[in-house]
Amino acid sequence: MIVLFTDFGLAGPYTGQVKAVLAREAPGVLAIDLFADAPAFDPQLSAYLLAAYAREFPAGTVFLCVVDPGVGTTRRPLWVEADGRSFVGPDNGLFELIRRRAVDLKVATIDWRPAKLSATFHGRDLFAPVAARLALGRAPLSTPLRPDEIARPDWPDDLACIVYVDVYGNAMTGIRADTLPDAALLIVNGYEVRHGRTFADTREGEALWYANSNGLVEIAVNCGRAVRDLELELGMTVEVET
Amino acid sequence: MIVLFTDFGLAGPYTGQVKAVLAREAPGVLAIDLFADAPAFDPQLSAYLLAAYAREFPAGTVFLCVVDPGVGTTRRPLWVEADGRSFVGPDNGLFELIRRRAVDLKVATIDWRPAKLSATFHGRDLFAPVAARLALGRAPLSTPLRPDEIARPDWPDDLACIVYVDVYGNAMTGIRADTLPDAALLIVNGYEVRHGRTFADTREGEALWYANSNGLVEIAVNCGRAVRDLELELGMTVEVET
Amino acid sequence: MIVLFTDFGLAGPYTGQVKAVLAREAPGVLAIDLFADAPAFDPQLSAYLLAAYAREFPAGTVFLCVVDPGVGTTRRPLWVEADGRSFVGPDNGLFELIRRRAVDLKVATIDWRPAKLSATFHGRDLFAPVAARLALGRAPLSTPLRPDEIARPDWPDDLACIVYVDVYGNAMTGIRADTLPDAALLIVNGYEVRHGRTFADTREGEALWYANSNGLVEIAVNCGRAVRDLELELGMTVEVET
Repeated sequence: MIVLFTDFGLAGPYTGQVKAVLAREAPGVLAIDLFADAPAFDPQLSAYLLAAYAREFPAGTVFLCVVDPGVGTTRRPLWVEADGRSFVGPDNGLFELIRRRAVDLKVATIDWRPAKLSATFHGRDLFAPVAARLALGRAPLSTPLRPDEIARPDWPDDLACIVYVDVYGNAMTGIRADTLPDAALLIVNGYEVRHGRTFADTREGEALWYANSNGLVEIAVNCGRAVRDLELELGMTVEVET
Repeated sequence: MIVLFTDFGLAGPYTGQVKAVLAREAPGVLAIDLFADAPAFDPQLSAYLLAAYAREFPAGTVFLCVVDPGVGTTRRPLWVEADGRSFVGPDNGLFELIRRRAVDLKVATIDWRPAKLSATFHGRDLFAPVAARLALGRAPLSTPLRPDEIARPDWPDDLACIVYVDVYGNAMTGIRADTLPDAALLIVNGYEVRHGRTFADTREGEALWYANSNGLVEIAVNCGRAVRDLELELGMTVEVET
Repeated sequence: MIVLFTDFGLAGPYTGQVKAVLAREAPGVLAIDLFADAPAFDPQLSAYLLAAYAREFPAGTVFLCVVDPGVGTTRRPLWVEADGRSFVGPDNGLFELIRRRAVDLKVATIDWRPAKLSATFHGRDLFAPVAARLALGRAPLSTPLRPDEIARPDWPDDLACIVYVDVYGNAMTGIRADTLPDAALLIVNGYEVRHGRTFADTREGEALWYANSNGLVEIAVNCGRAVRDLELELGMTVEVET
């Protein structure tokens, strides 16, 4: 299975072209759209999201990860093996939390290049063929690196920021919920938000935070849209009082 | 074939995670996105939409239906067999029109529970594995119910409200078009709307109603966007003068 | 492989219903969403986009193309064979640039009609079954036409207009980049835009034009959204000074 984690959107031409390449290079392998709306141009916010959502997929899954503001520059294309899962994408910090939380880790820079490489769409031209190859159990042409040779940004283990806003207007943070006690109070954009297990624990219109279904701290408003009702934005800081 | 009818959106992580479960539990079974933008948190509007769109699928189709504001509360998970099609989803009225219009009906509450059930994502953890099982021709662990034991909201047979706004800005109602004469006049948000068979029957900028391709009364503006031009909103009431 | 080029959107019911028909009529054939957000109701803008993106697909690909403001009128359903690729869709100019740039061209009007043809959804009822048939290597019931019998709008070979705005806010034009020298200056909405090879060639906040990954001239703003920062709109004219 190849899992797509990108900021490409689904309706336009980018995801479709990537899937056409995957179908040609790895016929019969299923491609799953996990995120097509990862935070655009923001490897840091995306890194916390990716680490939380990759965990639940079985060993052997290949992740094609493209949030790549530096496409066309000299940033390296990476192949990361972490606890049995494979990741391909740019060396810009996107895999920092995967790397940091992995027990078994191998990293390599991808040396393979396609006959024709566009300046702006390495997702289609370079990363998709490599992901297809990995999904077939074959290694791409690459050079092993020491883990300290790839981008190692100085980011916290849990990011107290809004990293994603979902279709319901709920705001996910980069904080793993099991690092917070239920008594923790969150303050975001001046609003105080207390813990609830489900919406049923709150009154209509009240904000709450909870462990979402992938283990991240998420902020919502019962029968409302947190992003509108609390005027939240991607990247906004969350204060935690425990 | 498994058909998805949800308010999950496609770009974010919900639909992808559901499809990953379906692929794991029922490999090779096709998953079709029918609606990923059913009216969020609104089982009533969704119920009329589902009944209109499920009809055209062949017997044997499994519908995974999740519009579920009560997730995490005690509402029951249902398995409904209606005229050869299978439906799984929450017992909150979502299947009311399916139930009411069925000739051959069986309903059951799903007793099976996964090893790990999140509080907020029963679509992935509970309904998807059950839909996969049904698609393979196997019954989930369940207890038959009498049809009068499930939610039976006191809703009209046809709902004179806007139940969906499509990508073109056209507004679908919950009224089956074959219940209205062509001479019927609709009044919505103060605007009078007359019948046309196609856009070609009207002048540019003029509103019309017609039987849409799934049999619902739909309101559009020739070369315009009804939702903008007539200032329509989801849930808005439509008056019918015949 | 069947490639979808439509203005149907993905979240709502149109694309899903088309895919259900394709799966029923051509089981096992892959359907790829290339564009589900082609310029709605605008065959001209769509025609330049289609011609640029169809090129990269291999011979044998079937394109199901529906941007069809005239659905329900007497415009003909077409089957076009161009350089080994098949196209089905309405005779409204959508295939004009495909036709004009083809070396090997055959066109026919589709005579086959389904048992039940809705007035507003020929994509599902007529074009999808025909595309499925072609994908299986079978010809639909049809009548050959001379190339001069189909719509031949008097459009330029390259369209100096914005034909698409992508998920990043970049604006594609209908100009093939290999027709412009790098020294060409674009003027759009009063803004002057110079050539760059990648974003790295510009300062943050600066606009640039470049050959996009499918060969069209595209306008972007480094670390910005061109559509917002330059106040661009679909269909807006671009002046070229060489």
